[in-house]
Amino acid sequence: MSNRTIDRRQALGFLAGIGGAVALGGATKALGGATSEPTTPAPKGTMARLPWPYKTLDPEAVGQRAFDAYAKGHCMYGTFEAIVGSVADKLGDPYKGFPFEMFIYGMGGVHGWGTLCGSLNGCAAAIQVLSANPEPVIDELYRWYQSVALPDFAPKGMKFKNVPSVAGSPLCHPSIAKWCEASGKKAYSPERKERCGVLTAAVAHKCAMLLNDQAAGKFAPASAVDPRTKTCMGCHEKGGPMENMRSKQACAPCHSDETLSLKGHQKIKL
Amino acid sequence: MSNRTIDRRQALGFLAGIGGAVALGGATKALGGATSEPTTPAPKGTMARLPWPYKTLDPEAVGQRAFDAYAKGHCMYGTFEAIVGSVADKLGDPYKGFPFEMFIYGMGGVHGWGTLCGSLNGCAAAIQVLSANPEPVIDELYRWYQSVALPDFAPKGMKFKNVPSVAGSPLCHPSIAKWCEASGKKAYSPERKERCGVLTAAVAHKCAMLLNDQAAGKFAPASAVDPRTKTCMGCHEKGGPMENMRSKQACAPCHSDETLSLKGHQKIKL
Repeated sequence: MSNRTIDRRQALGFLAGIGGAVALGGATKALGGATSEPTTPAPKGTMARLPWPYKTLDPEAVGQRAFDAYAKGHCMYGTFEAIVGSVADKLGDPYKGFPFEMFIYGMGGVHGWGTLCGSLNGCAAAIQVLSANPEPVIDELYRWYQSVALPDFAPKGMKFKNVPSVAGSPLCHPSIAKWCEASGKKAYSPERKERCGVLTAAVAHKCAMLLNDQAAGKFAPASAVDPRTKTCMGCHEKGGPMENMRSKQACAPCHSDETLSLKGHQKIKL
Repeated sequence: MSNRTIDRRQALGFLAGIGGAVALGGATKALGGATSEPTTPAPKGTMARLPWPYKTLDPEAVGQRAFDAYAKGHCMYGTFEAIVGSVADKLGDPYKGFPFEMFIYGMGGVHGWGTLCGSLNGCAAAIQVLSANPEPVIDELYRWYQSVALPDFAPKGMKFKNVPSVAGSPLCHPSIAKWCEASGKKAYSPERKERCGVLTAAVAHKCAMLLNDQAAGKFAPASAVDPRTKTCMGCHEKGGPMENMRSKQACAPCHSDETLSLKGHQKIKL
């Protein structure tokens, strides 16, 4: 049994412990099994413990809602509001009282820090709220994000030509840098701002499809760890002779002499 | 006016728009001004829109609570529950009905992905919930995290010797790698697990002090962008001749020929 399996089981045990009224029907199913439904109603005036009852989403509508929400509260708010807000609308009170706007904080990898892409941060939060088995859905979404040319979804209301790029990473900073390279546009341009809105829509759209699949018992991961990262992990990850790191990210974007070293900076004193 | 200032103002305008019952008393104050207090009670059965009314925290108690919460729900849950849960306990219903356990998702940089350190992810969420001017508090906390030897706080219940290390980054993966280097312990060892719990306590402790300072009108950033990162930003960040990135992270941990390149791997085909 891997440590991650223990972590997930511990987490589910914790959820069961503090949310005794919620049946964790999906928790013991195979990896990627269906989300659970609560068997008792939520306590009056408060939201049910996790996971909230899932309602099948319309991925196209969720993508459009994420694009519109991005214009109000940026990337993390965009995906979380589109996914969890769509479910909350169907569930009614008290779910609609959730303070969705708190997720503004994830904008630009947390208020411009360029760490985790806000659209992915919002999706992970949404998946945790709506799934009894969140890890495989998050893994699939994150691997897809770092390896596929995105955005692959075109919401209504776009003003600029969509320029897809492969982020190579789930982090905001490399994702934007790669798009700047592909588009020739600047990082603070109106085109970049819209690109992040369209990306938010694409990520929410994909996330809704994955959650629907899991809820319907049809979830099947389509992506795998890339061979180079697998080689690194053989030494550095759990059970390897060094075991001096923890990560599921692709290694290349940071650990690469070719693309991101300072070779071009020899004349600059850094 | 910087783009980030516009972003913040947009965000505050958005908050005011959807939370009309909440007085954003602190929003127009100078950078780092006091958090606001709502002038009207929360609608019955739902949580007040943001920010929630702040109550001065006991940083020592918050640090201990974060250590204890880590044992139940990992790093992101640890800081968020300790900070926002402490305020919610003082406010009573409906604040106590918030589904705190959703923040389990941030564990290990989001279910083991090694992206943003969960303790920082949880703090950013908490700061957004409790402050009308979150960005300067987040900036200060994140710069402190990446530049100071941590953990610098010792909760009750530690079993192992505390080995402080400088993460150099707000990301989980380099933070753990640097600690493995300093301690000589493995990334999946019981010592590493406890270290992340103690780090969670230290980050929550610091965050509570910063929030208290801001609420009391005494907030003054003590940290600054390091000179090397400033040099990089001169070309690559907003207004620079390249303007091909967005980030507030220190550049060195990833962009460094000395420490993290593949020079030692020439015999390995990657």
